[in-house]
Amino acid sequence: MSDLNYKSWNEECAVVGVYNIQDASNIAYYSLFAMQHRGQEASGISTSDNKKLFITKNKGLVTEVFNKEILCNLKGNNAIGHNRYATAGEDSSADAQPVFANYDLGQVAIVHNGNITNAKEIKDELIKEGAIFQSHMDTEVLIHLIAKSKQQTLTDRLKETIPKLKGAFCFIILSRTKMFVIRDRNAFRPLSLGEITNKDGTKGYIVASETCAFDLVGATHIRDVEAGEMLVFDKQKIQSHIIMQEDPYPCVFEYVYFARPDSKVFGRLVYDIRKSMGMELAKENPVDADIVIPVPDSGVAAALGYSKQSGIPFELGIIRNHYVGRTFIEPTQEIRELKVRLKLNPIKEIIKDKKIIVIDDSIVRGTTSKQIVKILRDCGAKEIHMKISSPPTISPCYYGVDTPTKSELISANMSNDEVCKYIGANSLSFLSLEGLKNSIGDGNYKFCQACFDGKYIV
Amino acid sequence: MSDLNYKSWNEECAVVGVYNIQDASNIAYYSLFAMQHRGQEASGISTSDNKKLFITKNKGLVTEVFNKEILCNLKGNNAIGHNRYATAGEDSSADAQPVFANYDLGQVAIVHNGNITNAKEIKDELIKEGAIFQSHMDTEVLIHLIAKSKQQTLTDRLKETIPKLKGAFCFIILSRTKMFVIRDRNAFRPLSLGEITNKDGTKGYIVASETCAFDLVGATHIRDVEAGEMLVFDKQKIQSHIIMQEDPYPCVFEYVYFARPDSKVFGRLVYDIRKSMGMELAKENPVDADIVIPVPDSGVAAALGYSKQSGIPFELGIIRNHYVGRTFIEPTQEIRELKVRLKLNPIKEIIKDKKIIVIDDSIVRGTTSKQIVKILRDCGAKEIHMKISSPPTISPCYYGVDTPTKSELISANMSNDEVCKYIGANSLSFLSLEGLKNSIGDGNYKFCQACFDGKYIV
Amino acid sequence: MSDLNYKSWNEECAVVGVYNIQDASNIAYYSLFAMQHRGQEASGISTSDNKKLFITKNKGLVTEVFNKEILCNLKGNNAIGHNRYATAGEDSSADAQPVFANYDLGQVAIVHNGNITNAKEIKDELIKEGAIFQSHMDTEVLIHLIAKSKQQTLTDRLKETIPKLKGAFCFIILSRTKMFVIRDRNAFRPLSLGEITNKDGTKGYIVASETCAFDLVGATHIRDVEAGEMLVFDKQKIQSHIIMQEDPYPCVFEYVYFARPDSKVFGRLVYDIRKSMGMELAKENPVDADIVIPVPDSGVAAALGYSKQSGIPFELGIIRNHYVGRTFIEPTQEIRELKVRLKLNPIKEIIKDKKIIVIDDSIVRGTTSKQIVKILRDCGAKEIHMKISSPPTISPCYYGVDTPTKSELISANMSNDEVCKYIGANSLSFLSLEGLKNSIGDGNYKFCQACFDGKYIV
Amino acid sequence: MSDLNYKSWNEECAVVGVYNIQDASNIAYYSLFAMQHRGQEASGISTSDNKKLFITKNKGLVTEVFNKEILCNLKGNNAIGHNRYATAGEDSSADAQPVFANYDLGQVAIVHNGNITNAKEIKDELIKEGAIFQSHMDTEVLIHLIAKSKQQTLTDRLKETIPKLKGAFCFIILSRTKMFVIRDRNAFRPLSLGEITNKDGTKGYIVASETCAFDLVGATHIRDVEAGEMLVFDKQKIQSHIIMQEDPYPCVFEYVYFARPDSKVFGRLVYDIRKSMGMELAKENPVDADIVIPVPDSGVAAALGYSKQSGIPFELGIIRNHYVGRTFIEPTQEIRELKVRLKLNPIKEIIKDKKIIVIDDSIVRGTTSKQIVKILRDCGAKEIHMKISSPPTISPCYYGVDTPTKSELISANMSNDEVCKYIGANSLSFLSLEGLKNSIGDGNYKFCQACFDGKYIV
Repeated sequence: MSDLNYKSWNEECAVVGVYNIQDASNIAYYSLFAMQHRGQEASGISTSDNKKLFITKNKGLVTEVFNKEILCNLKGNNAIGHNRYATAGEDSSADAQPVFANYDLGQVAIVHNGNITNAKEIKDELIKEGAIFQSHMDTEVLIHLIAKSKQQTLTDRLKETIPKLKGAFCFIILSRTKMFVIRDRNAFRPLSLGEITNKDGTKGYIVASETCAFDLVGATHIRDVEAGEMLVFDKQKIQSHIIMQEDPYPCVFEYVYFARPDSKVFGRLVYDIRKSMGMELAKENPVDADIVIPVPDSGVAAALGYSKQSGIPFELGIIRNHYVGRTFIEPTQEIRELKVRLKLNPIKEIIKDKKIIVIDDSIVRGTTSKQIVKILRDCGAKEIHMKISSPPTISPCYYGVDTPTKSELISANMSNDEVCKYIGANSLSFLSLEGLKNSIGDGNYKFCQACFDGKYIV
Repeated sequence: MSDLNYKSWNEECAVVGVYNIQDASNIAYYSLFAMQHRGQEASGISTSDNKKLFITKNKGLVTEVFNKEILCNLKGNNAIGHNRYATAGEDSSADAQPVFANYDLGQVAIVHNGNITNAKEIKDELIKEGAIFQSHMDTEVLIHLIAKSKQQTLTDRLKETIPKLKGAFCFIILSRTKMFVIRDRNAFRPLSLGEITNKDGTKGYIVASETCAFDLVGATHIRDVEAGEMLVFDKQKIQSHIIMQEDPYPCVFEYVYFARPDSKVFGRLVYDIRKSMGMELAKENPVDADIVIPVPDSGVAAALGYSKQSGIPFELGIIRNHYVGRTFIEPTQEIRELKVRLKLNPIKEIIKDKKIIVIDDSIVRGTTSKQIVKILRDCGAKEIHMKISSPPTISPCYYGVDTPTKSELISANMSNDEVCKYIGANSLSFLSLEGLKNSIGDGNYKFCQACFDGKYIV
Repeated sequence: MSDLNYKSWNEECAVVGVYNIQDASNIAYYSLFAMQHRGQEASGISTSDNKKLFITKNKGLVTEVFNKEILCNLKGNNAIGHNRYATAGEDSSADAQPVFANYDLGQVAIVHNGNITNAKEIKDELIKEGAIFQSHMDTEVLIHLIAKSKQQTLTDRLKETIPKLKGAFCFIILSRTKMFVIRDRNAFRPLSLGEITNKDGTKGYIVASETCAFDLVGATHIRDVEAGEMLVFDKQKIQSHIIMQEDPYPCVFEYVYFARPDSKVFGRLVYDIRKSMGMELAKENPVDADIVIPVPDSGVAAALGYSKQSGIPFELGIIRNHYVGRTFIEPTQEIRELKVRLKLNPIKEIIKDKKIIVIDDSIVRGTTSKQIVKILRDCGAKEIHMKISSPPTISPCYYGVDTPTKSELISANMSNDEVCKYIGANSLSFLSLEGLKNSIGDGNYKFCQACFDGKYIV
Repeated sequence: MSDLNYKSWNEECAVVGVYNIQDASNIAYYSLFAMQHRGQEASGISTSDNKKLFITKNKGLVTEVFNKEILCNLKGNNAIGHNRYATAGEDSSADAQPVFANYDLGQVAIVHNGNITNAKEIKDELIKEGAIFQSHMDTEVLIHLIAKSKQQTLTDRLKETIPKLKGAFCFIILSRTKMFVIRDRNAFRPLSLGEITNKDGTKGYIVASETCAFDLVGATHIRDVEAGEMLVFDKQKIQSHIIMQEDPYPCVFEYVYFARPDSKVFGRLVYDIRKSMGMELAKENPVDADIVIPVPDSGVAAALGYSKQSGIPFELGIIRNHYVGRTFIEPTQEIRELKVRLKLNPIKEIIKDKKIIVIDDSIVRGTTSKQIVKILRDCGAKEIHMKISSPPTISPCYYGVDTPTKSELISANMSNDEVCKYIGANSLSFLSLEGLKNSIGDGNYKFCQACFDGKYIV
């Protein structure tokens, strides 16, 4: 996808929870750093020292929001953290997480990713009953529900209220002494559990959106949190409650684009699956060409797979400049058309006079693909065959991915031939739904692929 | 007071409301700038363009929080603003104002100064009913009350709920098309109404804690908002509702210390009253001396009055360095005892061998006075007579002033002689309660002076 | 002067030198902080630990340029420092001091204030001989001269080269083990010597533009550096060399405006002299009026003197807002004419219907005075008598003060009556040259007053 | 090399010159952005509008030093720019480029990369003659020489003085109306010439260290600047002068590590050569293995080549986190040993139980290689064969590369077997000098490879 327009398709937020590990804020910090790719708009950490909660959140990258002093002030052995890729909002600074609240049972801080599909209805109902909402985050809905519940304990309140929420979500909730981890009934979004052995021999736990966080902090991946499961961490033990029961339909787009290739998501290594997608793509869409090149970094693994399957040599024909930040000065009129080159520079010597297969993970609006084809043409490519390692994206996502509306999705509005013409390629092919299934190679392929087939689970 | 320890006695917050003036955010900005002395911790502005609300708030001085671009994005002709001097809190960044909320009637933004004395009870009650509180600010209490009210309009809801609040407060509330301005039943905190004639001949309005804001933006002071009054601004008209009726007891400490000398507060010029206080002090406490010097800047007006009354020459014997900011590096051990000199430098040539009357506005903990006496002694003063232009501060304030607890108020725990000995002066005298009354010279002296006499209105 | 246009008349730079005092960088830092009023554009400190030199300099206030870590890295017991008020230049960031250089005898760092009147000639000569200049600072001239000198020691080189320089200057030069302090032959700019007794009983020394620096760091003022004197500090001793001999003609404008009132300059307390100027002004220019008010802060001492002499009451009729910083957002068209009010707010209740004497220290272009008269008129003043506690400024300064050119000096181009009409006052009077002399009251009045009489010493 | 310790081996600085292109500062900015990999410590641009020079330089990345306003103030159609990777120095902020100077012919600004090997001697000589040096940059040497030259024009002075300089260097010099571009006699460092056709049909020119800059701004690569050539750009024409004549010996390390893979350096595409190096490495050092993985990003191209030649599958077995910045918080003791993981995360699922060939471009101190081997071992690698796509680095570079001293170069002090043991690999092999030559495949292989064979050209 390699989208130059960061706003067009928001990456998933990242969540992390740490329980009973010394200097929990540090562990949360490194975990969020490892998952920076899931959200660069804002970052926050809340900790508890079993007596009270501490919180710091702000706009910016993890490394910008925190410093030694701030982490040091986030006291305690339990922590939760969040990376956010904000959607538009009047005051997006108010939308950083964790969300903190005082309520009748004390204090809570909550982080959350995904999307609660019935949030608006519940919110409207709550507002009708006199509730107030101070941000644009669905997280507030849950806090209201638990605050209004008549159950005696937070555990019971969560058991009662969480099942009322529909959609894709992971919640990590910190009270003064406990931590609660919840994954939605369909397990749309990934959430894994790891452990660390403390120096004193006790066990510490970490829960994170992606296992790459475990690698960085030296934790061992135990298992994923289950669909509909709530884990309750307290000093004595971890308890597992299945509070909702439905079939899991994890989001296949995590494999396509979101997750880091070095993460194990839904029990499988992302890198492997992306390679398989490339291999399937090669089987389905053979074409005579001189080289296979990826759109970096999103298309690299699939391109390696395509090359392996097809025998056509893999080349790094486009180089990515990693110094592009959010403060970059927009090019003036004179060089505006070269905007894509700020990030991606094709190597003319590799491209020239070649028949080229270009691999990207997906096409959203088509504008970036169009620009990529153009810069390759300018380099003298003889033929450009754009191959996408996933099916055409034809439906928006309602489960936490900030996709454009249907009217903006190019494949929802044009045939493949039209898209091909629009982007200017010699040919364009997508992986088939069957091919996608084969790539994952699971006998019991059960994924949410609504963005590709329009069939929403809920 | 000239307190080096900024945390010991928080200045009052500043509020401003602007209605029907082009680029309202600019007017709010300059008004907040004029009232920067009432709070330097955080600043915020919310505007409405009759369609929706915009908000920006952050830590820092007015000139640090805002820039041209930010002001420009705060669209519309209505605005409210706030300067905050934070009290301690886990996450004080969450405590900036305005507070924004979505509720059943739409959107509101609220700014607020003062202190709601029954906030905790109402809050506890609300929490019991399932409400959640996301900050440490009493402002949330009002939002909950209006959200829960069954009245049909915001006007009616405010009429219903505001009278439930006790204490000292000013509220300015912005909805998408209206602005509401409310002053508590005892009119503890100052709040004045001004007007501007727009270019097109229409009237624009501004409400602010101090009239110095009007001077800067070129508005005319019309009158003060009345005790228990609610002003409702909408496109057609301004309506006044008296929603609570009690005798006004404005805070006398505004005259003593808080307000800028060039503001008219409670109908009287602060500078005049401070001079009168100094004159009364001279009548009550004559002493043979060579010169009268103020502790700058807080004691200047009273010292001028003392000099005028006593005939003893006024001298600027202590010079204040105005470059002291919040980022100042703490002195090392070697020069720590000179800490007070970072801000205040006595002029040895003026002080030496003189009998000196030093005028300050009040004594809180006594530590600063002690340091001032010491640096004057070091300059060779023959006698140091510390004279305070208000009575001894013996009781904490519950109406919006973040005073130390009683145990920290030196005059609540020591006799005048003991305080005099502690600070090391040759003599120490305070203005009497009678003298304070005379200074204000009002036939019907009715002020809250609980900090001086312990008699709380409510 | 209270100039809103900071660029119109640059304040003098500040210099400080510290020798044999532990953590010399801290002492330099506090000294520069005390002298911040002499330059706010840039600040720098260089230290030596007897082995090598360290340096940090940057744009901004002292408190912005330095922090604990930076001061800590400026190792050693000797230090020099500088506050700069930059003149216009292509790359003013290159113009911060100290200036550092490697030359044939090793390393030096130099700070310098004032103005070398023959710098251009020497520079042209040096350039003709092949020298290069990397900044706009005259300091480079001296470094070139000492680098080219054939003398064996830096002491001898300074003895040889300094006398070639004309004009007003103070130099403080740090080598790896020594510190050199030089004042020009006419002692135009102030430079005082102080001492501190170290814990181990040894003496430490400090040299600074103003004695207010000594007050802050707890040093004792010993004496001023003499006209044409060079002090050489080394481990064993301080040596004094008179390297140039001429009559001293210190700059009288230090008394009028530059120096802090709490500094002793040229052996006299600035505050005292300013008061005398006000008294002389009252003798020379009596007028019937109700009150005397100063333009704060520059006119306060003179206004006190005027009031004392005339018996007309002193009032703080204009309040200054000290939060004005360099980042202030310019007012929009709507309130542009109120620009002066950002800094100065007149108190209407004091001004209205009064005959007012306004005291300022000087008039440069007349634009600020005009604005002040206007805002006082707007407050309803009956009569406004502008009285200036110095003679008309008719000639530019060539000795370190960045005055406007003659064509911009209003009194150089208009009669007093014309100036009075321009600024809109009822009357305008200046202190006479005779009155200036009397204010300083020195039997042997010998000051450079070229800005007032056009008679340049050199 | 993928060095975690940024200080161990400084990347080369980048230089750019722009002549006769509208908004030259923008072109310089984008060019420096494209060459950010050659220096991240400081950045600067100087421009001329044919009347005078403008300059801005500061610490930080290109995107941090400049913004729209700054670029806008850098007026004119000619510009030079520089990215710097600083060596240690007392005041490295003084060491940013361009260096600006006034001298007898007017104003110049100079940028420079590389290293003048006889700088110290010339500098000592100049100092003996009375010159002063204000920074640690060799650039000052050239300015002194041209300032002292007796030739009438800058062109003639450069012709006279440049040949006195030895070593590796590129200079770009801006005067008010001309630009001069010079490459050393051995053409050690790359420097290419490109052109842009302006809207009005005139030609504009750009000179840059790497051609990737041309790609970004849409310029066409014409040719490289020749060894010993000086190009003089003025309004009428470009003139070429060969001012020194010797055989070119370009730096082979540009191919090994410095240059971006998408740059054409010394007439050849870097990516191609790196692939060839990998292929040669495979021919020289076959080993039985399951996969070939690169150390990203430096080893990717060579690993592709190795895989191609050997037929052993290429895998991205280590993922690089590109969010690592200079402000990263150092890990606490608990996870310190995982430091390398902040940047590099191995994929356990790919590594486990495999025989692995790891490709990196070079080994300097060996510490990073040791850490990489360790994290691969921790993933369960069966065998780890470290293969380096260049010969052992045994000698420091004197031509502009800030290499460690010989005592720090592990291969200068240990045999291959010892190094292999130190880093903990199963085997370690380097490309031979012969293999290096073959990779470049040039019949007339003439490169400086002193770092590999110790034979210095000069």
